[in-house]
Amino acid sequence: MNPTEDRLKKCLAAIEAVSPAIAEAAQRIMDGKTKPRGSLGRLEELACQLCAVQGTTEPQITSKAIVVMAGDHGVAVEGVSAFPQEVTSQMLLNFASGGAAINVLAKEAGARLVVVDMGVKTAVEAENVRKVRIAPGTQNMRNAPAMTRDQALDSLIAGIEIGEELARDGVSMVGIGEMGIANTTASSAITSVLTGLHPEHLTGHGTGIDETARRRKMQVIEDAIAFNQPDPSDALDVLRCLGGFEIAGLAGVVLGAASKRVLVIVDGFISSVAALVAARLQPTVCDYLVASHMSVEPGHQALLHALKAPPLLDLSMRLGEGTGTALAMQLVSASHAILRDMASFESAGVSKKGQ
Amino acid sequence: MNPTEDRLKKCLAAIEAVSPAIAEAAQRIMDGKTKPRGSLGRLEELACQLCAVQGTTEPQITSKAIVVMAGDHGVAVEGVSAFPQEVTSQMLLNFASGGAAINVLAKEAGARLVVVDMGVKTAVEAENVRKVRIAPGTQNMRNAPAMTRDQALDSLIAGIEIGEELARDGVSMVGIGEMGIANTTASSAITSVLTGLHPEHLTGHGTGIDETARRRKMQVIEDAIAFNQPDPSDALDVLRCLGGFEIAGLAGVVLGAASKRVLVIVDGFISSVAALVAARLQPTVCDYLVASHMSVEPGHQALLHALKAPPLLDLSMRLGEGTGTALAMQLVSASHAILRDMASFESAGVSKKGQ
Repeated sequence: MNPTEDRLKKCLAAIEAVSPAIAEAAQRIMDGKTKPRGSLGRLEELACQLCAVQGTTEPQITSKAIVVMAGDHGVAVEGVSAFPQEVTSQMLLNFASGGAAINVLAKEAGARLVVVDMGVKTAVEAENVRKVRIAPGTQNMRNAPAMTRDQALDSLIAGIEIGEELARDGVSMVGIGEMGIANTTASSAITSVLTGLHPEHLTGHGTGIDETARRRKMQVIEDAIAFNQPDPSDALDVLRCLGGFEIAGLAGVVLGAASKRVLVIVDGFISSVAALVAARLQPTVCDYLVASHMSVEPGHQALLHALKAPPLLDLSMRLGEGTGTALAMQLVSASHAILRDMASFESAGVSKKGQ
Repeated sequence: MNPTEDRLKKCLAAIEAVSPAIAEAAQRIMDGKTKPRGSLGRLEELACQLCAVQGTTEPQITSKAIVVMAGDHGVAVEGVSAFPQEVTSQMLLNFASGGAAINVLAKEAGARLVVVDMGVKTAVEAENVRKVRIAPGTQNMRNAPAMTRDQALDSLIAGIEIGEELARDGVSMVGIGEMGIANTTASSAITSVLTGLHPEHLTGHGTGIDETARRRKMQVIEDAIAFNQPDPSDALDVLRCLGGFEIAGLAGVVLGAASKRVLVIVDGFISSVAALVAARLQPTVCDYLVASHMSVEPGHQALLHALKAPPLLDLSMRLGEGTGTALAMQLVSASHAILRDMASFESAGVSKKGQ
């Protein structure tokens, strides 16, 4: 086994299933708070999950981070997107200069933003963009593997290292987001292979293509799968065949963060593909995942079903960049504050049900 | 017309329909931001509504407030709640001392909390509770009108004054929440009369009653409507017959805030009943309403449909107190930050779709 594969294997082995006993103890604490049992719904579940992830009924939220990874996709030449390919690099610069939606929403959520160039076509000059740059974009998956197996592994490891580093820095939750023209095409293809569903049910309008373009996009996806014949039981092989660098990198962030018991907030369709890749490499990672929202992309529901992660929000969003995670982080913080600060029936002198 | 009715009439007349032209101008600004058109979904709609409410495409969010009103219900003697009636006063004290869910969530949202005793059975000693105290609880609607027409009017006016006062204090959005043992019973009855739907479809498990108790609750509601015969076309008469002081008061807050062009965030089932009462008194008030979440109470969907206000969140919550509004305020703030701070395609040098 080469050193890179060994590194991955060690990270996967470090991701422990969380303890249901701690989640149950947290629920008992919630049941003692001055409110009807269960009346805070998903907020109660979130608090219990946070406890289970951190392994304590007194979890801490110190700082928050959102990792946005960008990469270009060779398949963009097939005209599968409404936007030209140079938009990936332009948006990377926009992230660097603070003008994108995720800059605004991360600030609102009090989350630090980590912007990573995993391999855009044209490199950008910006100090606050981390340069991993596996290659200047993937190959066109319609007639070639999107990347080599080594590139897929290197992307994963780069993500793992960022996830582990954020944990070392004391980050309590990590959101994942992405940017990459044509990456809904790669994502629909990966979802089709990993879930066994036909691209017809998984191919949407991305950033805004019409029905004719959507049909073409679906054909490209079918062609790419037929050409590459990825092995559905080997998530690394699926990444190799279909891409992209940012998807593989985010799968790594998920694994790295979970290996250090950090809660991971997943954004929309493409980020959920990264989470599913991570889950196929190590199923216990699902214990660490929170699905922030339901995207309008048609493949997203199937992904969240596969991840057993019901979405917190349903706001008809379809932007990516981690925007959903920034909103969901505020719900996690709210659930944490409830657990920590609400009075119990005893301490507040409130009568219980039926007494 | 007596002075109180005149006061109400003046407030109703001051609630103007908002300008669709401003909402459209706001949407054009949103369309120029560096993202696919419409890709922020409900956040974009929220920003446009905020603009329309404030009458400008440069709206301000200065401060936020949540008004929680408490009142007791005579119908509690019918055993319609899982909790004893003294819990209303106990929770009022809990609000005053900062231990309830809404204290925690209002703080998270950066909102000031205004706690009002509209008429609980046992008055509480607490400086930070406003005392309106129309009466120490309503009458049992099963065999009497819940209140007099003057009490209904006085409750409304007390709420209007608080809504107007908050607007004068520079509050940019007002959330409404409530506490009152048995107030889902009153709310289901009011909803049945105002929407014409049968209590069977509108009666839920409240704070946690079983199916036998739910059937009894439904019978109480049917009896109350049969005894009082409220006039469905006269929202004041419906309040008079079925109560309660906190519901009437919150309807007033909605009207007072809207008359001063302040956005109103509505919590769950009971708060939505208050909003529907306000909307029956003045339909233009709907322009100012944001429904924070979908409660698990079965009547809530019908109410939100009647208010034409789709819920932002669906987190299986059923607590009341304004808890949903605190969460939704963070989404409104996020939408406002997007409108104000995101770069445009031009300013960021990002290529547009299809160029």
